[in-house]
Amino acid sequence: MRVVAIGGSDAGISAALRAGELDPSAEVIVVVADAYPNFSICGSPYYVSGDVADWRNLAHRTVADLEATGMRLRLDTTAERIDADAHEAHVTDAAGQREVIGYDTLVIGTGALPVRPDIVGLDHLGGADAVHVLHSMADTFAVMRSLQTSTARTAAIIGAGYLGLEMAEALTARGIAVTQIEQLPEVLPAVDSELGSLVASELRSRGVEVLAGTVVKRIAGDDSDLRRRIRIDGATADGAPFERTVDVVLVFAGVRPDVSLAADAGARLGTRGAIDVDRQMRTNLTDVYAAGDCVVTHHRLLGSAYIPLGTTAHKQGRVAGENALGGRREFAGSLGTQVVKVFDLVASRTGLRDHEAAAAGFEPLTVAAEADDHKAYYPGAHRIAMRWTGDRRTGRLLGVQLVGHKDAEVAKRIDVAATAIYSGMSVHAVNELDLSYTPPLGSPWDAMQHGAQAWARAAAETGGRVPSSVDPDI
Amino acid sequence: MRVVAIGGSDAGISAALRAGELDPSAEVIVVVADAYPNFSICGSPYYVSGDVADWRNLAHRTVADLEATGMRLRLDTTAERIDADAHEAHVTDAAGQREVIGYDTLVIGTGALPVRPDIVGLDHLGGADAVHVLHSMADTFAVMRSLQTSTARTAAIIGAGYLGLEMAEALTARGIAVTQIEQLPEVLPAVDSELGSLVASELRSRGVEVLAGTVVKRIAGDDSDLRRRIRIDGATADGAPFERTVDVVLVFAGVRPDVSLAADAGARLGTRGAIDVDRQMRTNLTDVYAAGDCVVTHHRLLGSAYIPLGTTAHKQGRVAGENALGGRREFAGSLGTQVVKVFDLVASRTGLRDHEAAAAGFEPLTVAAEADDHKAYYPGAHRIAMRWTGDRRTGRLLGVQLVGHKDAEVAKRIDVAATAIYSGMSVHAVNELDLSYTPPLGSPWDAMQHGAQAWARAAAETGGRVPSSVDPDI
Repeated sequence: MRVVAIGGSDAGISAALRAGELDPSAEVIVVVADAYPNFSICGSPYYVSGDVADWRNLAHRTVADLEATGMRLRLDTTAERIDADAHEAHVTDAAGQREVIGYDTLVIGTGALPVRPDIVGLDHLGGADAVHVLHSMADTFAVMRSLQTSTARTAAIIGAGYLGLEMAEALTARGIAVTQIEQLPEVLPAVDSELGSLVASELRSRGVEVLAGTVVKRIAGDDSDLRRRIRIDGATADGAPFERTVDVVLVFAGVRPDVSLAADAGARLGTRGAIDVDRQMRTNLTDVYAAGDCVVTHHRLLGSAYIPLGTTAHKQGRVAGENALGGRREFAGSLGTQVVKVFDLVASRTGLRDHEAAAAGFEPLTVAAEADDHKAYYPGAHRIAMRWTGDRRTGRLLGVQLVGHKDAEVAKRIDVAATAIYSGMSVHAVNELDLSYTPPLGSPWDAMQHGAQAWARAAAETGGRVPSSVDPDI
Repeated sequence: MRVVAIGGSDAGISAALRAGELDPSAEVIVVVADAYPNFSICGSPYYVSGDVADWRNLAHRTVADLEATGMRLRLDTTAERIDADAHEAHVTDAAGQREVIGYDTLVIGTGALPVRPDIVGLDHLGGADAVHVLHSMADTFAVMRSLQTSTARTAAIIGAGYLGLEMAEALTARGIAVTQIEQLPEVLPAVDSELGSLVASELRSRGVEVLAGTVVKRIAGDDSDLRRRIRIDGATADGAPFERTVDVVLVFAGVRPDVSLAADAGARLGTRGAIDVDRQMRTNLTDVYAAGDCVVTHHRLLGSAYIPLGTTAHKQGRVAGENALGGRREFAGSLGTQVVKVFDLVASRTGLRDHEAAAAGFEPLTVAAEADDHKAYYPGAHRIAMRWTGDRRTGRLLGVQLVGHKDAEVAKRIDVAATAIYSGMSVHAVNELDLSYTPPLGSPWDAMQHGAQAWARAAAETGGRVPSSVDPDI
C-alpha cells in the first residue's frame, strides 16, 4: 500500500502522519515543493518581530522527526501532473530530474496562492525591491532580507486581515513606522466594524497609521531620495488622493485555492474554484483525496464554503490520511473560528455574522454586549466587547465575536462558543452552562453568559423566541 | 403578588432579581440574616491578601443597587419559622422585634454552615483567640482583626480545599508563614492526587509548609511565650506525632446544608441532608422553592448530588425566582465545574473523576496527558497537565481536570470541556471542534484536543470504543 501526499504543509503532513500512525506498514511519501515541510507559516510574524530568534523553530516538526514516523519526504520536488487513471504522480526534483511516482491513494494538499491585487506597477516589483506578496517561508526570508540589508524605517502594509495586522505589530516591534491600508471600511473585516474599530484604535495607540476604506492604485520605485524607496498612491475613503513613500511594502490581499494540478487531472471544482470534495475528503477522481486550503470546506452552518485555515487543514488532512487507507471518517465541519492578537488586544470570532446568517436563510438577531473578564474587585479586570448572533425563529446560537485584552482569555471563550455552536445549542443554553468561576478568572455568570443574557433580553423585547434548552425544537 | 426570599446570598438575591425583572409589579422581599447582602464571599481571600483594599468592593451589588431594582431588603433579620400552610414567614429583626411576613411564594436560600471538625479544644476557641472557622463576612472581619491587631507571623490552615488554598496564598502575601494541613493524602482533594501534587509543589515553592495526610487532633491556647499563641497537634501520614505553635488558625473543613428552617416547616430532605427539590426548584411544600447551598442539586451525569457552589446557587436562584412567579423553568444541572488559582497555578475540573464515574455506573477510563498552552516557539508557553475521563463503552466524555500556569487559559479551557459534557459529546468529538488558533494563544490542535487524542489512543489500545461524532450511539 502506497499513499502519496502532494504538499508539505498542514494538510499533506497531517494526512501522512495519520496514515503512518494507522498502518506503519504503509509506504507514505510526501512531495514537498520547497525545503520547508510542516512549517508554521502562521508563526512568520513572530520571526519577523524577533520573538522567534531562529526560523527553524517555526517547524512543527523537523525533517528528522517526520521521517522518524516512517514517511519519506521528497523535498524541493514539484508535482507536474497527476494521471488519475494510471494512479501516477509525475514530479520533477530540484535537479530537474523527472520521475513518476505510482500510488494506491493520493492526497492533494496543494494549499492556496496569494491573491495579487490589481495595483498598477505591482507586477514589476518584487522582493529585491522590498515589495513582498507574502505566502511562503521563502517570502518570509525575502522580507527579512529587506529589513536587514536596508535600514528600513517605514513600511506600508496593504491589507488588514489577520496576517497584515500581525505584521504591523511585528514591524512596529522592530522600530519601523507602519502605515496599514485596508480597502474595506474597517480593519479586520472578518469581524463587524464595531469590533474592528477597537482593533484600529489599538493600532493607532501603538503608532500605526491606519487608513481604512483606502484603495492603493499604483506602486512604483522612487529614487528621488538618496536611497531607493517605494511610492504608493491611491484614494482614501472620501475619494481624496493619498500618497506615501516607504522603505518596505507588504501585500496581504487574501488567497485563492491552488488547484491547477488537480483541475488538470480532471478534479471537479466547486465554491470559489476550490476542489470539490465530500466529507470524507474524496474528490471525484478514484482514489484521490484532497484537503486543506485547496478544497471546498464543509461548514456546519453553511454547508459548503471556502475557508482556508490551518486548523481546518490539519483536521481535513487527518481525515484524508485515514480514508486513504480505506477508512470512512468524516470531516465534522468548520465554523470559521479565528483569533488574532494585535498588540495587547485579541479579536476572535466563530460561526456566522448577521449578514452571513441572513444569506444562509436564518433570521438573525445580532446583539452587542460587554462584560468583565473577571470580578472587577480583583486587580487587572478587562472589559470584553461582544457581538452575539442567534436565530430569532429557533433561538439557536449562530455566531459570537469577541474583542478584549490579551489577558482576558478571549481565545478560549470563543472556543466555548465554538463548542456550543458545534452542538447546535441555543443561546439560552449558554446561560445554563456550568462554567468555572473564581474571582481572579471569572464571574459567577461568565462574560459569555452575560452576552447570552443580553441576546435573550433583546430577542424577547423584539418578539423573538427564547426557548429553554429542554425545548424539543432545539 | 408577594415573593419572599430568605437568604441574602447568591440564591436568594438571584431569585429576587429574576422575579423583579420578570414582573416589576411583584412585591419582592429578601430577608437577610446579616448586613451583607449579595456579597462575593469567594472574594474574601483577596480582601485578606490586600488585593481588594475595601471590603465593600466585594459586594456584587450595593444595597442601593439592589433596592433600585424594586426589591425590599430586611437586613439583620432572622427567619425563625415558616408556616407553610398559612404562607407566613416569622422573623425577628435586629432590635428583637418579631414580625410575620405573609407570602404568595417563598424561596429558601439559607445556604450552608461550616463543618466544625472533630478537634479537641476547638469548641473552646474562637475569633478572639485567633481561631477562625470561616464562612461569613463577619468571619472574614474577625480574621482581619486577628491579623491587624496582633503581629501575626505564623498561621496554620486546617483544610486544603479551594478556600484553604486561596487563604494560604493570601496570608503568604501578607508575609505570614503558613502551615497548610490536609487530612486527605493530597491537597486540593477535588482533583486527582497526580494534579493535587502539582499544587502542593507550587505551595512549597512559595514557602508554604504542606502537611498532607495529616490529622489535627487537638488545639489549645499556648501562653508559654510572652504572647498568646495557638498550639495544634495530631498525627502525620505515617502516624508520627506532629505539633505546631502558631499565631492564627483558620479552619476550612467543608460545609453542610443549613436546613433547619426548612426541615422544621416540613420540607423533605435528600442527599447529604439537603432540601429535596425538583428541577423547577420546588420543595414538597406548596409554593415553597429552595435554591443554592441548602438544596440537593441536579447533576447532569449523576442525577442528584450535594454540590455547594456559587455558580450553581446563582442559576438555581434565577430558576426559583422565575417559577415563584408561575414560571416552569428547569435548572439544567451542574457538572461540578470548579477552578482555583493558587499563586501562579490554576487547577480546574468539570464532570466526573474516575472513581465518581465508576460509582455512577459508567465504565471509565482516565488518561493523563500534557500539552503546551500555545506554540512553544512563541515566548511564554506553559505546559498544561490534564486528566481525561471518558466512558469506554460509549466513548462519551465524562470529566476533565486541568492544572497549568495562571496565564495558560486553564479556566476557559475547562469551560470548553464543561460545554462539551453539557452537550453529551464524545471524547472524539472534542477532537473535531473548530477551536481558535493563533501562535501566541494556542496550537493548530488545541491542548484540549491533544488530551482528547491521548484518551482515544489509550482507549483504542485497551479495546475501548472510539466512535466518531456521527456515530448514532452517541
